[in-house]
Amino acid sequence: MRISDGSCRSWHYRNAADLTILSLKEVFSMTKITENRHVLTMLVENQPGVLSRIVGLFSGRGYNIESLCVAPSFEEHISRITLVTTGTTPIIEQIMKQLRKLINVVKVRDVTSQPSIQREMALICVIAKSENRAEILRIADIFRCKIVDVGSEHYTLEAVGHEDKLEALISTLKPMGIRKIARTGPVALFRESGIGKK
Amino acid sequence: MRISDGSCRSWHYRNAADLTILSLKEVFSMTKITENRHVLTMLVENQPGVLSRIVGLFSGRGYNIESLCVAPSFEEHISRITLVTTGTTPIIEQIMKQLRKLINVVKVRDVTSQPSIQREMALICVIAKSENRAEILRIADIFRCKIVDVGSEHYTLEAVGHEDKLEALISTLKPMGIRKIARTGPVALFRESGIGKK
Repeated sequence: MRISDGSCRSWHYRNAADLTILSLKEVFSMTKITENRHVLTMLVENQPGVLSRIVGLFSGRGYNIESLCVAPSFEEHISRITLVTTGTTPIIEQIMKQLRKLINVVKVRDVTSQPSIQREMALICVIAKSENRAEILRIADIFRCKIVDVGSEHYTLEAVGHEDKLEALISTLKPMGIRKIARTGPVALFRESGIGKK
Repeated sequence: MRISDGSCRSWHYRNAADLTILSLKEVFSMTKITENRHVLTMLVENQPGVLSRIVGLFSGRGYNIESLCVAPSFEEHISRITLVTTGTTPIIEQIMKQLRKLINVVKVRDVTSQPSIQREMALICVIAKSENRAEILRIADIFRCKIVDVGSEHYTLEAVGHEDKLEALISTLKPMGIRKIARTGPVALFRESGIGKK
């Protein structure tokens, strides 16, 4: 059977399109373009406007900063920022490159998949009815919390640990009624000994 | 002696200028326009761009944010921000009014002079030479720190407390040699019991 030149070309084009779709899918699966949680630590100069520029890089892409900590480091003019965000790996890498270009940024590191120590602190104000007080103290003891404030109707707990531990503590205290929470968000340090993923 | 109209006017203007300077000085001393440290806590909606707008209000006035903590609160769509800055009271009040105007800001409070619980967490990586190790452990014990990482040449300490306590700990450890520090900056909760200034 003889096929006209036109139909042959259209068949060729259709298959080419299929191939393109397939190869894109393959590329997608290879580079894993999924949104992951990233923990970035950076050292920046302690000057007005630096934080604004850094935060702007994320919000400009519509990326939400889940948590952020800024505080002076061992030198007074240098601050350390720990930032948690959710995004695709290529975009986070692009943001990191742009961060490194900023004159006030000294160092940037993505410690998500590197061995690091991550800790978070939380102050949790929980409603303490007389029938719940013993249970709250038991939970505080199990999670190694400190009671830092007591009122006629509430206890305030200070808890430190990995994010997952704090999440577990909060969900355990939820049935008693949580009035308010102040969390710091995680701070991270690269683990010099190089052991462990978190 | 007759004074020309022109000279009389200039004398009048000079004195008026003097008066203006004096009265401004008086106003300055009356309202105490000195730069103080302010701790602000706020509840904001957890959306992209909110943090950028808040930080922009401070950096737009050339105000440096000393430390800042953002993390989710007890509700997932609400985040709590604790922010430390240094500025004159009228300007801080003006910024607070502008913050309250933002649609994504739920609540703003200046807890500087109010009874509040303030806590900070720090991870301190200190150089641990063999002759200093016992001393570092003693200091860690006194300040109720935990050792969270040990290497051949360093200890990493986790310390929690009021800012002053952490400052004292850091200055005590400084002679041994501090490699790096990750501080969260203070988080603050209004003390419901209303007792104590800090």
